[in-house]
Amino acid sequence: MSAQPIPYTIRRTVRWGECDPAGIVYTPRFLDWVLEAAESFFADVAGVDWFHLNQRDGLGSPSVSTQIDFHKPIKHGEPFTIEVLVRRLSRSTITYAMRGRNQAGELCFSAALVSCIIDNARMKSVSIPEPIRARITEYQAATAALLEGETRP
Amino acid sequence: MSAQPIPYTIRRTVRWGECDPAGIVYTPRFLDWVLEAAESFFADVAGVDWFHLNQRDGLGSPSVSTQIDFHKPIKHGEPFTIEVLVRRLSRSTITYAMRGRNQAGELCFSAALVSCIIDNARMKSVSIPEPIRARITEYQAATAALLEGETRP
Amino acid sequence: MSAQPIPYTIRRTVRWGECDPAGIVYTPRFLDWVLEAAESFFADVAGVDWFHLNQRDGLGSPSVSTQIDFHKPIKHGEPFTIEVLVRRLSRSTITYAMRGRNQAGELCFSAALVSCIIDNARMKSVSIPEPIRARITEYQAATAALLEGETRP
Amino acid sequence: MSAQPIPYTIRRTVRWGECDPAGIVYTPRFLDWVLEAAESFFADVAGVDWFHLNQRDGLGSPSVSTQIDFHKPIKHGEPFTIEVLVRRLSRSTITYAMRGRNQAGELCFSAALVSCIIDNARMKSVSIPEPIRARITEYQAATAALLEGETRP
Repeated sequence: MSAQPIPYTIRRTVRWGECDPAGIVYTPRFLDWVLEAAESFFADVAGVDWFHLNQRDGLGSPSVSTQIDFHKPIKHGEPFTIEVLVRRLSRSTITYAMRGRNQAGELCFSAALVSCIIDNARMKSVSIPEPIRARITEYQAATAALLEGETRP
Repeated sequence: MSAQPIPYTIRRTVRWGECDPAGIVYTPRFLDWVLEAAESFFADVAGVDWFHLNQRDGLGSPSVSTQIDFHKPIKHGEPFTIEVLVRRLSRSTITYAMRGRNQAGELCFSAALVSCIIDNARMKSVSIPEPIRARITEYQAATAALLEGETRP
Repeated sequence: MSAQPIPYTIRRTVRWGECDPAGIVYTPRFLDWVLEAAESFFADVAGVDWFHLNQRDGLGSPSVSTQIDFHKPIKHGEPFTIEVLVRRLSRSTITYAMRGRNQAGELCFSAALVSCIIDNARMKSVSIPEPIRARITEYQAATAALLEGETRP
Repeated sequence: MSAQPIPYTIRRTVRWGECDPAGIVYTPRFLDWVLEAAESFFADVAGVDWFHLNQRDGLGSPSVSTQIDFHKPIKHGEPFTIEVLVRRLSRSTITYAMRGRNQAGELCFSAALVSCIIDNARMKSVSIPEPIRARITEYQAATAALLEGETRP
């Protein structure tokens, strides 16, 4: 994790095929980006990718809830970033807070995603295993100031 | 609208390609379904499809916010339904409340979607035009009892 | 299978989110439709859905190759059909020939898809099991006249 | 174009949500990648992005045909590359040849895509405008050796 920038940030460009006939990003694509950001964060910061989590550890990370607020359109072809923060870490759930910004740094969308760690065989939530918890806790501590006073989802 | 069942309901089956390697629906696909349900509702109940709204009327319906709560997995191949209700109609926004249910009628997910009607050329919100407002208001009245006491998004 | 129309036909409408900023269907969505048509055909005509084929029988049906020719645009909101034919059935592969038509019956796209039945554990092709082969052979016989003299993929 | 590596190459990782319940890439996602590669190539090598081509120049680039051959599975999480070559440049069409390779350099899939440049208003093919033609011709010359003797699509 030490090699990761703070906050953990995805860089992306809006694709032609992600836009609808009105020329703006088709709403569901934002949730694709949120999940892709969570996937990358999990692999890079929590230290295990979802495939190994499932195949090797028998654990899944289904979503409990998600919320996205759209503030400002992102233009086709324009680079944008998604910052991934962790608002809350409970026994078995992780609450992500994400911020999508355009090149000027303006907030374009904010998102929350609650994921739960489950035992795939029993389909029951389980305690987030160490060292995943340790790594996320460390990241959360390093980025806590970025969520202070925030009222975004 | 009189020919539409009350509440307006989409019937769907979970596709193979909508599921991830854990064998469950990949989270972003739910937002695809929510938007598809809103699109169908708009064409069938509000009386104009999004393409004509854009091309003929110069109006768009971008999303302001969305929220999805996941209650129970839907299995691959299993038919499910999405009921579309309207929680709120303001000057320029429509707040949809949707309920996804499996064949046994159990609530699998609930969703909110706030859409705004805008003038595409000026990118500014406008009053929802008659007769769209009239049709949605009529539908809202006919289905109001279904949202009473609900605390879902 | 006896209850299925001949040829096996999918009915679909072009969705808003399937179109790109030029207002036409974004090319990759056609391959989504081809795979969805193959999935439905397999469940309805071959008699087993892909989920059971994988989970219960330990068999997969990866794609070997695909080809799509685009003849005529399909407009947003316009209903269209996809007819599914079987051009060839070998020991372990099925070669589908599909025809997409608009409401006027005009050919809008034609597609080929070669799928192979494999043993998931060994990742090796296997003989297509009875009664899947029997059902597809029966369907192929009933629809052979529709492919005669065709030079489409 | 001079700043682009030869051949023009996309670097990508297989996403969790791009895989199906059998744990392999869901077939239609390959065509998403092919179109994304063509989009990037057009912006970086031909020198104009599809959005400007449409909005500013009134030109579109619909697909005429596509073909994909699948040779070897790409594993989830594994980085892979797509090389973009131009097999043929006619008055109004571009025939791309693409090669998907895993980290070991093994050929995993090969694809062809024929795109046509059209006048959006008249929906008619037009001559590929200079300097787009000049740039693609120059690229084609610089990479011709890579397609010699190839029988892939």
